Amino acid sequence: MKFQIMRDSLLDGLNDVMKAVSSKTTIPILTGLKLEVTNKGLYITGSDSDITIQIFIPVEKNGEQIINISETGSIILQAKFFNEIVRKLPTNEVEIEVTNQFQTHIRSGKSEFNLIGLDASEYPLLPQVEEERQFFIPSDLLKAIIKETVFAVSTSESRPVLTGVNWQVKDGELHCVATDSHRLAKRKTALKDLPEEEYSVVIPGKSLNELNKILEETTSEVAIVMTQQQILFKTGDVLFYSRLLEGNYPDTSRLIPNEYKTTILVNGKSLLQAIDRASLLAREERNNVVRFTTIGDGFVEVSSNSPEIGNVEEQIQAETIEGEELKISFSAKYMMDALKAIDGQDVKILFSGAMRPFVLKSVHDDSILQLILPVRTY
Amino acid sequence: MKFQIMRDSLLDGLNDVMKAVSSKTTIPILTGLKLEVTNKGLYITGSDSDITIQIFIPVEKNGEQIINISETGSIILQAKFFNEIVRKLPTNEVEIEVTNQFQTHIRSGKSEFNLIGLDASEYPLLPQVEEERQFFIPSDLLKAIIKETVFAVSTSESRPVLTGVNWQVKDGELHCVATDSHRLAKRKTALKDLPEEEYSVVIPGKSLNELNKILEETTSEVAIVMTQQQILFKTGDVLFYSRLLEGNYPDTSRLIPNEYKTTILVNGKSLLQAIDRASLLAREERNNVVRFTTIGDGFVEVSSNSPEIGNVEEQIQAETIEGEELKISFSAKYMMDALKAIDGQDVKILFSGAMRPFVLKSVHDDSILQLILPVRTY
Repeated sequence: MKFQIMRDSLLDGLNDVMKAVSSKTTIPILTGLKLEVTNKGLYITGSDSDITIQIFIPVEKNGEQIINISETGSIILQAKFFNEIVRKLPTNEVEIEVTNQFQTHIRSGKSEFNLIGLDASEYPLLPQVEEERQFFIPSDLLKAIIKETVFAVSTSESRPVLTGVNWQVKDGELHCVATDSHRLAKRKTALKDLPEEEYSVVIPGKSLNELNKILEETTSEVAIVMTQQQILFKTGDVLFYSRLLEGNYPDTSRLIPNEYKTTILVNGKSLLQAIDRASLLAREERNNVVRFTTIGDGFVEVSSNSPEIGNVEEQIQAETIEGEELKISFSAKYMMDALKAIDGQDVKILFSGAMRPFVLKSVHDDSILQLILPVRTY
Repeated sequence: MKFQIMRDSLLDGLNDVMKAVSSKTTIPILTGLKLEVTNKGLYITGSDSDITIQIFIPVEKNGEQIINISETGSIILQAKFFNEIVRKLPTNEVEIEVTNQFQTHIRSGKSEFNLIGLDASEYPLLPQVEEERQFFIPSDLLKAIIKETVFAVSTSESRPVLTGVNWQVKDGELHCVATDSHRLAKRKTALKDLPEEEYSVVIPGKSLNELNKILEETTSEVAIVMTQQQILFKTGDVLFYSRLLEGNYPDTSRLIPNEYKTTILVNGKSLLQAIDRASLLAREERNNVVRFTTIGDGFVEVSSNSPEIGNVEEQIQAETIEGEELKISFSAKYMMDALKAIDGQDVKILFSGAMRPFVLKSVHDDSILQLILPVRTY
């Protein structure tokens, strides 16, 4: 294997593929990256066995030659060292050559690195994914869907299936749900050309967070292929595979109340900032619980009280308050997460009483629903 | 105590004074800030008992009214909470009022915080420093002096005096020296109006690092007062006190060789980058030691070798190489620290043989000297 490549392009590719590489892996070969040069270009694969990313750098892009291939071939190189070396090379022209015994020479300017590589045939194969049942989501919409749901997954391994986001394809819509059993985030999206069969998969939250870092804020389509054990996202020259979580995702539809006693319309940003301030004094002694009370004249009061430190009260003018008076307590963190997911728009909050879960929705967009369980304090 | 203050000015002051407050303090009162309002303005004091910072916010600055005082007085407030609260207040106008039992009300917009304060008379007094023996250094020069020396202090507490920088006033010059016994950084500065007596004090490295964060890159003068136990830096509306380290600082002058066998003139930036690359493969197995070898034709070679990972070699064109051929090994980190202190200029490196300490100087500026002990590898 011998080729020259533009350092910038190699770095871009490494930035993506390194997101799959973990220093904590227990499988030694996965501390390496697989480089494969064909006549078409360079493929680099990294994996932590949950996530596998393969990037492709073509020989030529937009009329510019990026790679000059002298000899095709493949090698495994230590990911950490290879990435750091490329990052610090002195010039934009890099030559990579594998000689006998997997000795790999990386040359740039007057600098030459020799790395001890491994036989590429020892690297695990890519997951097998049949591409029949694929559908498409614009990259920016996929990022929004991830952002609106993934924060609500459980961080505890006591029910592993709750550490993922449930994606269901049914009735021409994609339904995404995450819950840690104290709060729930739900987003539905109508999509064209969805597969006709119903699907339900659970994608690890960590995978979606890493995918989100790779996706660009553009309208270019991401192809998605779901199988029994794997989900594949294809975007540009990147293949992103994630293992799926096993086990049945709980039916969350019955958690959502269908009758409401108090409905409050309020500016999401003002409420977010008030909750943020109230939480300052709620963190140490109060487990980050704040109070939310209707006080008449269209005002609500957000407050918290820590006997040893002090208390805080803030009044917020609501757009409208309909229904019964309300005194409720909830986690400031959950409320702020939900308001951030709804993203500064006017928010409708639907309460069914101080002891019942309540629902947040955007006034302008019915596709997002956030549900939070209150905390008993009275 | 009751006053209104512009939030921006209060935040600027808190940014400085919070640098003295440590969450790890064992003295409970020092988790607080002392606020004192006089007819002149607001004084805020914070301390971790090693460093004490007092800032002053005047009633009026540049013709603009910053504070409106209704009643003078003083209070101690929990530093962490007060700082976070001010950071998140909804408007630029803040009212602070102390009522009975040290209850402190912080009001802004429709938000009101009530903090439980403490009696200000319980806060430690500022260190007593007589101002007779003060001298002046421009702020930007003081920052340069700190940057060129403080990195070389010892991080080990086995010889506490080496965790500080030795400042000596003698012969109309300020001599600053730091060493961890493996390398040494020295800077001398001619100053006008230095005290005539000789002084030698040892300032904790941590204090100088915090002071550096507060100092601005301007030519405004910083007044410095040294006493037996304390040093005081006065800049603008900030007083910065640091405890001094006890014990005699070792005489380092005999460490510096006065005869040299090899003298190399080289571009500091190119050498820094080459050492940085060579260190990539030296970190894990080689304790970050790189080799430096003259190879003829005005070239030096920087290299390192880790049997399990690989090796790296890089040739650098020197400006001049005079004297004997040389093969030497040293810590990449120490070399990079020294080159960064000399800051990208052409560097003169003076060697006295592979086993002897060597010296780095700037070609343009004789006031800085960096010394590094080599590592035996041959």
